[in-house]
Amino acid sequence: MTRRQLLRMIGLGAGSAAMYQAMSSLGFAAESNYRGPVSLSGAPKGSSVLILGAGIAGMVAAYELRKAGYKVQVLEYNARAGGRNWSLRGGDRYTELGGASQECRFDPGLYINPGPWRLPYHHRGILSYCKLLGVPLEAFVQVNNNAWLHNSQAFDGKPQRFRAVKADYHGHVAELLAKATQGSRLDALVSHEDQEKLLASLRDWGALDKNYAYVKGGLSNSRRGYERDPGGGLGGRPVFSEPLRLHDLLDSGLWGALPLGDDYDMQTTLFQPVGGMGMIGQAFARELGPLIRYNARVVDIHQDEHGVRATFEDATAPGSRQGAVADWCVCTIPLSILGQIPMNVGAPMAEAIAAVPYAPAVKIGLQFKRRFWEEDEQIYGGISYTDLPIGVIGYPSTGYHGSGKGVLLGGYVWGLDAMEFTAMTPQQRVAKAVEYGSRIHPQYPAEFDNGVAVAWHRSPFTMGCFGMWTEAARARHYDNLCRFDGRIVLAGEHASYIPAWQEGAVTSALDAIGRLHQRAVAGGSVA
Amino acid sequence: MTRRQLLRMIGLGAGSAAMYQAMSSLGFAAESNYRGPVSLSGAPKGSSVLILGAGIAGMVAAYELRKAGYKVQVLEYNARAGGRNWSLRGGDRYTELGGASQECRFDPGLYINPGPWRLPYHHRGILSYCKLLGVPLEAFVQVNNNAWLHNSQAFDGKPQRFRAVKADYHGHVAELLAKATQGSRLDALVSHEDQEKLLASLRDWGALDKNYAYVKGGLSNSRRGYERDPGGGLGGRPVFSEPLRLHDLLDSGLWGALPLGDDYDMQTTLFQPVGGMGMIGQAFARELGPLIRYNARVVDIHQDEHGVRATFEDATAPGSRQGAVADWCVCTIPLSILGQIPMNVGAPMAEAIAAVPYAPAVKIGLQFKRRFWEEDEQIYGGISYTDLPIGVIGYPSTGYHGSGKGVLLGGYVWGLDAMEFTAMTPQQRVAKAVEYGSRIHPQYPAEFDNGVAVAWHRSPFTMGCFGMWTEAARARHYDNLCRFDGRIVLAGEHASYIPAWQEGAVTSALDAIGRLHQRAVAGGSVA
Repeated sequence: MTRRQLLRMIGLGAGSAAMYQAMSSLGFAAESNYRGPVSLSGAPKGSSVLILGAGIAGMVAAYELRKAGYKVQVLEYNARAGGRNWSLRGGDRYTELGGASQECRFDPGLYINPGPWRLPYHHRGILSYCKLLGVPLEAFVQVNNNAWLHNSQAFDGKPQRFRAVKADYHGHVAELLAKATQGSRLDALVSHEDQEKLLASLRDWGALDKNYAYVKGGLSNSRRGYERDPGGGLGGRPVFSEPLRLHDLLDSGLWGALPLGDDYDMQTTLFQPVGGMGMIGQAFARELGPLIRYNARVVDIHQDEHGVRATFEDATAPGSRQGAVADWCVCTIPLSILGQIPMNVGAPMAEAIAAVPYAPAVKIGLQFKRRFWEEDEQIYGGISYTDLPIGVIGYPSTGYHGSGKGVLLGGYVWGLDAMEFTAMTPQQRVAKAVEYGSRIHPQYPAEFDNGVAVAWHRSPFTMGCFGMWTEAARARHYDNLCRFDGRIVLAGEHASYIPAWQEGAVTSALDAIGRLHQRAVAGGSVA
Repeated sequence: MTRRQLLRMIGLGAGSAAMYQAMSSLGFAAESNYRGPVSLSGAPKGSSVLILGAGIAGMVAAYELRKAGYKVQVLEYNARAGGRNWSLRGGDRYTELGGASQECRFDPGLYINPGPWRLPYHHRGILSYCKLLGVPLEAFVQVNNNAWLHNSQAFDGKPQRFRAVKADYHGHVAELLAKATQGSRLDALVSHEDQEKLLASLRDWGALDKNYAYVKGGLSNSRRGYERDPGGGLGGRPVFSEPLRLHDLLDSGLWGALPLGDDYDMQTTLFQPVGGMGMIGQAFARELGPLIRYNARVVDIHQDEHGVRATFEDATAPGSRQGAVADWCVCTIPLSILGQIPMNVGAPMAEAIAAVPYAPAVKIGLQFKRRFWEEDEQIYGGISYTDLPIGVIGYPSTGYHGSGKGVLLGGYVWGLDAMEFTAMTPQQRVAKAVEYGSRIHPQYPAEFDNGVAVAWHRSPFTMGCFGMWTEAARARHYDNLCRFDGRIVLAGEHASYIPAWQEGAVTSALDAIGRLHQRAVAGGSVA
């Protein structure tokens, strides 16, 4: 397995978080400085705030500022709210940069989330809005022990069950460390008393036999699974399976996928809104109602000592420019877009806006005629990982045992592969995902029905998936990005230590409006 | 930590399966010899089968035999179907042996499953009946990284988060093995080429730094969690937490809980029926309708060359004896009860019936005024483990974010502790569970509302939780238990290699009726 394959597997595997780790170990982590629901009040009479972008950050800001007594207006580029909080369903049309247009043809009730798809238990900000807005949640299955790990260069290209790779890696590690301990090789590192406890723990944890060996038998099979499972009545006796050899396991690189579900961002319990991630954006939009002006493409942002003016075009009436004014502006437009909009801010913020490239990523949704992954392979929810460019196959954590059609996440493509996929037509991306996926699920060609593909670098409203901070960029630019420039403050996942996650959008918005409120109450000083 | 505490933690931890392992490593495992839906047909004209017990085994047998054309009658002791497949809800009354009677006072929609509470993904038999009968499923969260691990003798009795114990144990194990590898201490065990790959894998898997050390910082914290989580805007920078020391971790014994969710029976994806496990029994009962005669206490089973007669008392009319006759009998009465009922079978089956003791276990359901585990501690579903007699605290994997009351599994007591709890009144059991649980959740005393407790050894219909096979007993008696004796065949979890699980009941029933059908078609030979 090449370094590139390994990095790809780590990157793809973790979705986002493990990739951050591979890129940099600082400032890429998981939870929030969320401190419970905010309670702003006493907005100066007549104070107004213009919010740019009706994604999660913009709508959190609008919700809380309106409650505090501000006059609020939100300008949104799309004809819908939510931004990257988005579920594509049957009948939805999506046109990407370059003009390619797709109509999603999924059956009723089926969807794909082109953007975020998971809510960790510790993302208290976004979860609190789910509760507040009455968005029901269900468990998102991240780790599925019966899903596949696949390296096209290992085990003759045959995918292995997650449970077998995990049990065998733990078993071999435990056996090796037990042998080192018994051979007095750890005497300099661990006291004799602790060595005894270590041995006891390794036997239990690694499913070792009484000789501290990880071998074919009832113990290893109680983790990795059986050749033939135990059953009932006469003939119910199990047949044991053979563990993978340490050499083959190490060589395969499949161990790279084992810790993904241990990541703080990917640990149980994870959630998804019932009906798709987009239910959160829709709930906010219902709540805010006429505060949001849709189809408004901001083309200029200008501030002076009296206030802020955004000039925008109505996408339904091209060429017609209009203005919106307010005392303050919370701008949540992604930096990839914002960098192209004239805005009179100082060099520190302007340089920060220019310093953050956006990650390329492509998500592909595939509808199949039946839920063959459940019916044939007993895979319910969770994710299979592969070194192929599709990276993952995600199974729906909902509608289990449904007898109709089903939709898979047919690929979540990152890095260079994402660039290649972005260059294809949507139809080509879908075809490639079916081709690659067939090497893990041979049912693909016969069962495939239709698909959609979202390449984030061709998204007109973000031109990328999320802000990719490096450690150096963060040290130099992050605070400048977050500080007020006059009457303008930025918010969004890009203005957080939780990039790519909706929790970053929520907590950055709460931080920004808290500071805005302080300033407004203090009499509008912009110092 | 004493050996007893360790065994208790393992036993309690795993529910059933890990305890089997501690007791015996053979014949206690996980899946089934299920081979897809059975399709019997062509029952000899007029053939009849008497089924004793409307638990899962009995109702599977009834469903399939009726479909095959047999005349079927089911005698059930209780006033409801399901047996140990059972959910207690508000308004339900339960009277145990000894006469203590409880009325469950849970709020509408809340329940506790005194018996089975989980459905593993590979239990294809029971899952197929859920699909067939239209019982909707939802994910059961077994491992919750934010739940507690508690040893009253370690860390000053302060519970630790599962994620911290897991990350730190993996980290320390990885660091030790990496050091042994780097110190050439594994040269005799692992080739140099594999050592390099092993090191790379350990760094990734154990979240080690570039020097292969597990230390306070971004890497360890990306698994174990933070002192203060990363957030948005200014001030979003995380504060790192300190890992537990290896010595303290080994000493605590809390590592004993780490592999529980890796057990083949406890791996993701696990399910529960929406609305409680009892929904399966209820669905079967609706399907079978008048085939089931309730309140029928079997007092004698007699066979001769012509057929089988069961004599039973109607519990609603004590003293009045009635008889039911058929060509064949599928008896699913638990062995603990069956051993007390006169039945003319040969010594091999009679001795087998007497050879299997039943596990003591007590489950306690506690209703609280609010879901404080979610609101205060971000624990959504999953299980906390403790060395206290309650063993576990189970959080509901449903109704997340509900604003009303909530029900916890306040204890799942095993072994000697279960004997002690069984000797108490139900009210005392509930009070004890509240007292012990308060040491993990200080909110208990203020939030407690009401509770119920089921001590399986006092259950009139099973007198125990499930059949506890030893390796020796299985070698000597298992086949004799499963073989036909004349016109009688036994089925149930006790007649399977998957004791305690509903899948054992399903697969043993399918095996038994398959053999019954062969015999019936062959002309009723009882040889």
